[in-house]
Amino acid sequence: MRATVLYGPGDVRVEKRPDPTVQAPTDAVVRVVRACVCGSDLHPYRSMPVTPEGRTMGHEFIGVVEDTGSQVANVKRGDFVIAPFAWFDNTCEFCREGLTTSCLHGGFFSETQAEAVRVQQADGTLVKAPVGEDSALLPSLLTLSDVLITGHHAAVTAGVNARTSVTVIGDGAVGLLAVMAAKRLGAERIILMGRHQARTDLGREFGATDVVAERGDEGIAKVLELTGGHGSHTVLECVGHMPAYEQSLGVVRAGGVISRVGVPQYDQASAGRSLFGRNITLTGGPGAQRKYVEELLPDVLEGRIEPGRVFDRTVSLDDTHEGYRAMDQREALKVLVRP
Amino acid sequence: MRATVLYGPGDVRVEKRPDPTVQAPTDAVVRVVRACVCGSDLHPYRSMPVTPEGRTMGHEFIGVVEDTGSQVANVKRGDFVIAPFAWFDNTCEFCREGLTTSCLHGGFFSETQAEAVRVQQADGTLVKAPVGEDSALLPSLLTLSDVLITGHHAAVTAGVNARTSVTVIGDGAVGLLAVMAAKRLGAERIILMGRHQARTDLGREFGATDVVAERGDEGIAKVLELTGGHGSHTVLECVGHMPAYEQSLGVVRAGGVISRVGVPQYDQASAGRSLFGRNITLTGGPGAQRKYVEELLPDVLEGRIEPGRVFDRTVSLDDTHEGYRAMDQREALKVLVRP
Repeated sequence: MRATVLYGPGDVRVEKRPDPTVQAPTDAVVRVVRACVCGSDLHPYRSMPVTPEGRTMGHEFIGVVEDTGSQVANVKRGDFVIAPFAWFDNTCEFCREGLTTSCLHGGFFSETQAEAVRVQQADGTLVKAPVGEDSALLPSLLTLSDVLITGHHAAVTAGVNARTSVTVIGDGAVGLLAVMAAKRLGAERIILMGRHQARTDLGREFGATDVVAERGDEGIAKVLELTGGHGSHTVLECVGHMPAYEQSLGVVRAGGVISRVGVPQYDQASAGRSLFGRNITLTGGPGAQRKYVEELLPDVLEGRIEPGRVFDRTVSLDDTHEGYRAMDQREALKVLVRP
Repeated sequence: MRATVLYGPGDVRVEKRPDPTVQAPTDAVVRVVRACVCGSDLHPYRSMPVTPEGRTMGHEFIGVVEDTGSQVANVKRGDFVIAPFAWFDNTCEFCREGLTTSCLHGGFFSETQAEAVRVQQADGTLVKAPVGEDSALLPSLLTLSDVLITGHHAAVTAGVNARTSVTVIGDGAVGLLAVMAAKRLGAERIILMGRHQARTDLGREFGATDVVAERGDEGIAKVLELTGGHGSHTVLECVGHMPAYEQSLGVVRAGGVISRVGVPQYDQASAGRSLFGRNITLTGGPGAQRKYVEELLPDVLEGRIEPGRVFDRTVSLDDTHEGYRAMDQREALKVLVRP
């Protein structure tokens, strides 16, 4: 099959790789119908050291089951399925608590920008969707693989509800879908921090009540002004870079919560007195929880939400490099890949 | 009146200072019946730069109202009262949310190791207790001024309940009372990390089911062993130094919560990927919330808990320096001061 491989900064190639096969009785092989490029893929795209053997890419996909191991009972050949960006057995003690990203027998996908994917722990991981390969819902279903459930995770872990003001930092696909998720959970005041008007306009359609284009101290001052001088009860940090974290500290209200879902590109951070004195809570992490897919799927199927609107470009698998380039240059918000 | 003043490392003096007076109609003056020395007082005791004008000390006290401003309605001359370590109006929007430490018209006490204290926002701050000055309950009531409500804050913000395993880091008074608070909230498994046996023995009486005396990697390994290899759902960090924070990261379970109530003596900390990947929540802060005093007071008055057992030495106000010395040398766990 063909798969996307990254060899170093900007060096994306699509190559022949061995076809995935069922290797364990709990495996399935899924033919990829749609994959996509993630904002987090841009981190290695920009800064990965040159690697002669390359690194396969992608963690988001939807597709059709082609083969299953002998112990797989919940899905069968021909089923249309969604996989969140992690695989898990859905039976271990962490899965039973809902934290499928910490499954004792799980892991994270890392080669889904391809024609097919080996899915370990298929019964736990795959969620069936009653659609055909030509469904108009495919883009929205694909967001259940990462960007929508990640935005939802930010809103859930921050405790968003009708009484909480919300500030979303970042106008990438996750940020915009964090707006959608916050709105869906009842938030009435949603401030979106972002400076790309086409994106923030979509954010307004998703539920943002205010847009703050300024950054740094100026952006913080604007959010404080919009929140009676005290800041936002919840802050959904959907970027992962240090300035976004520092922005979070500046706009969060005393007693409030910062939830991070952008993968932090730092480890040391201002997290002592700066959080402590005002009783700020810092939470978040990878949000590939099966329960989110199950909770959000009906809203997608019944058209109550249209998260697939974040896709503004489609490329063929052979042109995946062009998808990376367009997202890196911020020409595209989110790129869909058709194998 | 006499008051305790710190001039530099180890230099504690008791001096004449002006008697506190009612300066605003919402003030009260309270004669101090008991004060005490806090673990957090040891930070400046050890490291404050030499200061010619000195700095008054103490934030914990119980006492009797001596005078009130014209707008004070809830307490009157002669009432026995408890003050948490902050003062607040109990009417602003933060107070209404229960976060009295962030009162818009509040502040923190800083001169209670003295004969009397000016209490701003007396109606909001002071909680009456139906006891006399000779009550045997005085030491336990005094813990409602800080160490018990702080330990309780750690347990509450961490979400301790019957289903959560708890690890308490630190065998100071706050750590031991965090054990008591966790037990009171229903925790069945409470691991206390501390290496002073007299203290950890008291911790066992307060509800600790296990004691881990080891520190660093060895201590972490021990806690993991006690928790099925996965760590503790909640970690109550009651120290404030970096090694205690790092210990917290090592013993917390995926999806778990670290609540810090020891004032962090650092700002930069490992708080990026180390928290993110496993969905760890970091919370906590100053716990001088009025609601805690009101919630815990009946348990103290009716003898269901005896938090005052953390006091193992009493000094007169003139000997406060000796109280600091004994706590600094770890001869005493917590020192009560009688003016």
